[in-house]
Amino acid sequence: MNTFGNIFRLTTFGESHGPAIGGIIDGMPPMIKIDLEAVQAQMDRRRPGQSPLTTARRETDNVRILSGLLDGTTTGAPIGFTIENTDTRKNDYEWLRHNYRPSHADYTYAAKYGIRHHEGGGRASARETAVRVAAGAFARQLLETRGITITSRISRIGAIADPTPRQTDAEIARVKALRDTVGGVIECRMDGVPAGWGEPLAGKLSAMLASAMMSIPAAKGFEIGMGFDGCSRLGSETIDEFTDEFATATNHSGGIQGGISNGMPITCRVAIKPIATIMRPLRGSDDQGHPVTLQPCGRHDVCALPRALPVVEAMAALTLADALLLSLTSKI
Amino acid sequence: MNTFGNIFRLTTFGESHGPAIGGIIDGMPPMIKIDLEAVQAQMDRRRPGQSPLTTARRETDNVRILSGLLDGTTTGAPIGFTIENTDTRKNDYEWLRHNYRPSHADYTYAAKYGIRHHEGGGRASARETAVRVAAGAFARQLLETRGITITSRISRIGAIADPTPRQTDAEIARVKALRDTVGGVIECRMDGVPAGWGEPLAGKLSAMLASAMMSIPAAKGFEIGMGFDGCSRLGSETIDEFTDEFATATNHSGGIQGGISNGMPITCRVAIKPIATIMRPLRGSDDQGHPVTLQPCGRHDVCALPRALPVVEAMAALTLADALLLSLTSKI
Amino acid sequence: MNTFGNIFRLTTFGESHGPAIGGIIDGMPPMIKIDLEAVQAQMDRRRPGQSPLTTARRETDNVRILSGLLDGTTTGAPIGFTIENTDTRKNDYEWLRHNYRPSHADYTYAAKYGIRHHEGGGRASARETAVRVAAGAFARQLLETRGITITSRISRIGAIADPTPRQTDAEIARVKALRDTVGGVIECRMDGVPAGWGEPLAGKLSAMLASAMMSIPAAKGFEIGMGFDGCSRLGSETIDEFTDEFATATNHSGGIQGGISNGMPITCRVAIKPIATIMRPLRGSDDQGHPVTLQPCGRHDVCALPRALPVVEAMAALTLADALLLSLTSKI
Amino acid sequence: MNTFGNIFRLTTFGESHGPAIGGIIDGMPPMIKIDLEAVQAQMDRRRPGQSPLTTARRETDNVRILSGLLDGTTTGAPIGFTIENTDTRKNDYEWLRHNYRPSHADYTYAAKYGIRHHEGGGRASARETAVRVAAGAFARQLLETRGITITSRISRIGAIADPTPRQTDAEIARVKALRDTVGGVIECRMDGVPAGWGEPLAGKLSAMLASAMMSIPAAKGFEIGMGFDGCSRLGSETIDEFTDEFATATNHSGGIQGGISNGMPITCRVAIKPIATIMRPLRGSDDQGHPVTLQPCGRHDVCALPRALPVVEAMAALTLADALLLSLTSKI
Repeated sequence: MNTFGNIFRLTTFGESHGPAIGGIIDGMPPMIKIDLEAVQAQMDRRRPGQSPLTTARRETDNVRILSGLLDGTTTGAPIGFTIENTDTRKNDYEWLRHNYRPSHADYTYAAKYGIRHHEGGGRASARETAVRVAAGAFARQLLETRGITITSRISRIGAIADPTPRQTDAEIARVKALRDTVGGVIECRMDGVPAGWGEPLAGKLSAMLASAMMSIPAAKGFEIGMGFDGCSRLGSETIDEFTDEFATATNHSGGIQGGISNGMPITCRVAIKPIATIMRPLRGSDDQGHPVTLQPCGRHDVCALPRALPVVEAMAALTLADALLLSLTSKI
Repeated sequence: MNTFGNIFRLTTFGESHGPAIGGIIDGMPPMIKIDLEAVQAQMDRRRPGQSPLTTARRETDNVRILSGLLDGTTTGAPIGFTIENTDTRKNDYEWLRHNYRPSHADYTYAAKYGIRHHEGGGRASARETAVRVAAGAFARQLLETRGITITSRISRIGAIADPTPRQTDAEIARVKALRDTVGGVIECRMDGVPAGWGEPLAGKLSAMLASAMMSIPAAKGFEIGMGFDGCSRLGSETIDEFTDEFATATNHSGGIQGGISNGMPITCRVAIKPIATIMRPLRGSDDQGHPVTLQPCGRHDVCALPRALPVVEAMAALTLADALLLSLTSKI
Repeated sequence: MNTFGNIFRLTTFGESHGPAIGGIIDGMPPMIKIDLEAVQAQMDRRRPGQSPLTTARRETDNVRILSGLLDGTTTGAPIGFTIENTDTRKNDYEWLRHNYRPSHADYTYAAKYGIRHHEGGGRASARETAVRVAAGAFARQLLETRGITITSRISRIGAIADPTPRQTDAEIARVKALRDTVGGVIECRMDGVPAGWGEPLAGKLSAMLASAMMSIPAAKGFEIGMGFDGCSRLGSETIDEFTDEFATATNHSGGIQGGISNGMPITCRVAIKPIATIMRPLRGSDDQGHPVTLQPCGRHDVCALPRALPVVEAMAALTLADALLLSLTSKI
Repeated sequence: MNTFGNIFRLTTFGESHGPAIGGIIDGMPPMIKIDLEAVQAQMDRRRPGQSPLTTARRETDNVRILSGLLDGTTTGAPIGFTIENTDTRKNDYEWLRHNYRPSHADYTYAAKYGIRHHEGGGRASARETAVRVAAGAFARQLLETRGITITSRISRIGAIADPTPRQTDAEIARVKALRDTVGGVIECRMDGVPAGWGEPLAGKLSAMLASAMMSIPAAKGFEIGMGFDGCSRLGSETIDEFTDEFATATNHSGGIQGGISNGMPITCRVAIKPIATIMRPLRGSDDQGHPVTLQPCGRHDVCALPRALPVVEAMAALTLADALLLSLTSKI
């Protein structure tokens, strides 16, 4: 189950402190000119160590492409790639071998598999999102050939709605001083998607986006268009009446009606929980089910939001690339 | 793309005003005794015509089982079933042949396929959810053999949070008098799911639930556990510290950590938009892209929430049945 | 696992002596005019009771279409259909409740599921191929819009290679008089498939055809182009040299190279075993593993080949329809 | 479509003359102790340069494991691995940039994608089978925990049936002297598979094996048990009568009845065509469709059979590992 998508597919592997992470992009159409610097630029948005407010782990996150390109152009063959883990500190995690941190995946992985990589979260670490960003950068370039753009912003951090970047930095600094963490909401906007993408029933574009976004570590909520707030209102306040040429005067629907795009901008929001590692003693559990007090250490972010922006965009890009290819099979 | 699930799978067919709707349940394990009256009881919760507040369409929604049972017990073979459409009125919809209602799937289906069933929403009609409820009732009986129960409630209707049934009825009556419609939120709770269900990455239980719920017509948002509100808080306020035997003192996580169940109750909420058909003139479009004023008629609900409760539960049951079967492949 | 295909998909249900069998065709493109008489004509080629040499079971095999068509044209919505079982004789099979016939699926189904439909083979009965023929008839009409035709013939019956119809009838009559059964080989030819269909690796067109054909009850072998015989020769005898415009002088490859069609006719052969029910006492087993002598009775064919022709063609059509839709995603 | 399998899945990437090939094994159960030397031993059976009769290309084919193991034990996480291409000679293939060899995938890849890796067959090269062998070695170790073994042998080379190794070597030497190539048949035997594996209909074990084997480059035929020859006989000659405890006196069925294993050894045969590159001038085509005479050069095997043995076994292992995991979902 480490594969996203139906036709445009990403399969990933790798643990936080193993030798490398990586993935295989399958279904990429041929004859797409790839700008590898643009791929790396997406990686740089996500990688740690860029600001005093993020984790001190240093990774250059260079993407090594192993297949699927000929003279910089896709061939239709799968694109295999790896990203080396260079700044690993396995020994930092020996204390976790027999202990489970609260609100992490330590216990659930152990319950599922009977064994787990205890070093830095292993497979459950957010480090795996680097692979998504790399693959998303390829998907984005496919979409750009169709004039589709994807952007995102922090639409809430803690109690602050629609923060400016300065407000965001200040809130993170404030929370860091408290030895605490903070969550929020990321809004993502997809422009240029034509009407008619998305499949009925199980493959609704809204359901595909929901699945993609909720697969991001720390995601606890997803909404499209008017979302939860709009659902507290009346029909008369939320119907998107038509203007000319199938455009609508408002966009409460968020660009999707009946699970299929209507040509308006697609807007969605993803709720990202506060990081569960705070620099205070917490009640964890040992692997026998006995509570233990754990004092977190290691290198951790205070807020996942800034680095999650390219991840949200990557998941949007992977989803839309798949929807694009699926849409080609609906007309003949 | 009319199939839900990986191992426990439901494939559906049928339009609102065709001869019948139905589905095939594949992957149901053998030797499960099926209570067909319990299946019908779920159908009765969803079917229209039960209250003066719901659509006047009358359907008995009798489920005809065509295969997969031997003396009332599952055999491992696929369970095919049909539900006849008895109260169809195709002629009611002639005015829709060349017109698209706003905030419906009329235009998006036409854009996708170049042709559409214009009668009562065709394939996009909420009538298809009857098939989900029938299949969900089978899934539920599988889950009950493991002690799992699924319940739901309306947690918001319009501006009213945590309404009593009386409040809900009053709000619907009030909105009906306005010739308007109203949305809200349904909360679903799954008890008895053991720790260890759900797959990492693409198959996170939270992502599977999100996809299932967002595939429900009119769903515009999904959240798990603390959801959007919890993401506005600090880590110290939202970490679920352990007590004894891997239980947690709080359940902000909503029973899922790292995409895998942790043995606590699973809680999620689904935002359901106001029904887009209101009894007032609205600005639609003809199939050439010219705005037209449409006066809705036909038989419609004022609020989708009461009848959506069994649908939400059915999608939860289908998802958990799939997660159960997948979990059997993770240990050997 | 009762679903064939990736984009053009058929999901089936039904037992030999249940109320009905049926299926759902998903992925059929919209705007294809369907000739329902042509569908029924395919059914008539397969149905029993047409000749004194076939089983005495009488089925009209009328296909009831429940969805997916509007005025005889596909809409992109799934096509649900049922075929009633009218000539069932459940009581004929009571002696099989606790006994397993040799070389049938009786024991293997019981071993897999711990329970089985013992009436006429239940789910394992060749009756399910009626559903394939119905769905294949839809696929065939999709392919015909591209100029693709599918034909088949009996290329071996027992020891007779390339038999005429008269020889085939004579051989069946001869074997019937012996109270025995006989197998053979069916050759299938697909004309008009353009170069470029089929996916590399797991989705090779040869692998897809092999899977489809080997899923037919009684199939024990599959070969493409020169097949087993050609593999006993030298490279110099079997290389298809080019002539003009990418055509080849010979067609040892059977129209597929590297798993992808090359524009030449696709030819394959399917080995069909002798029917395992012969009118003589045979050593079976009871459900405790003790050998028992069984005297077969019931209504059975002497040779599966004549009625398997439309089944082989149907599986070819389903496979090619899927390959057609997949091919649309490989170029953009 | 570069993924094999349903639950136990292998996704692969890589071209013959790119920097590396590799794959991701997904679905490997946890807690399986992996013998990496045994993995490498399988690689050594397949790699070139071991005999004067095989291609002169030298590859050590060291498998670099990047994830999924903890102290040599599987964790349930995906196993990513790479195999470097060390002995590449891109310049040897410049003459192929605009020319298509007969009976190769040159033209079909170009027709499908409009672009192709012309160096050494690119993605279509048999080099990709190294990845299958590596993954198959993991699958084999999973199966060994259940007592399942997989063996294979050359059952025909050219006109010689059941050759001894000495006969095989002599035939290859003889054909090499002719500047020709030769094909044959590989027989594979799977012991220890319990009754009850394989799914009805689309997932028949025979169909899964057929698909896996026919995905091997150069495979042109597949048969199970008695295969094509047995289908020329009578029912009375080919029925596997029961003895004690569900065993059968004969095994014409090849261990599979109704698509499901019956506990007897599974036997199948794969026809492998003569390699299409012979050291003589051949009629190819340029990329405009004009015939051209090509004089093959480069490093090529004379007969694919010896090196294909571990590939056939690997595909058997991958298929059985998947069937094993699927079988866990059929009973509860």
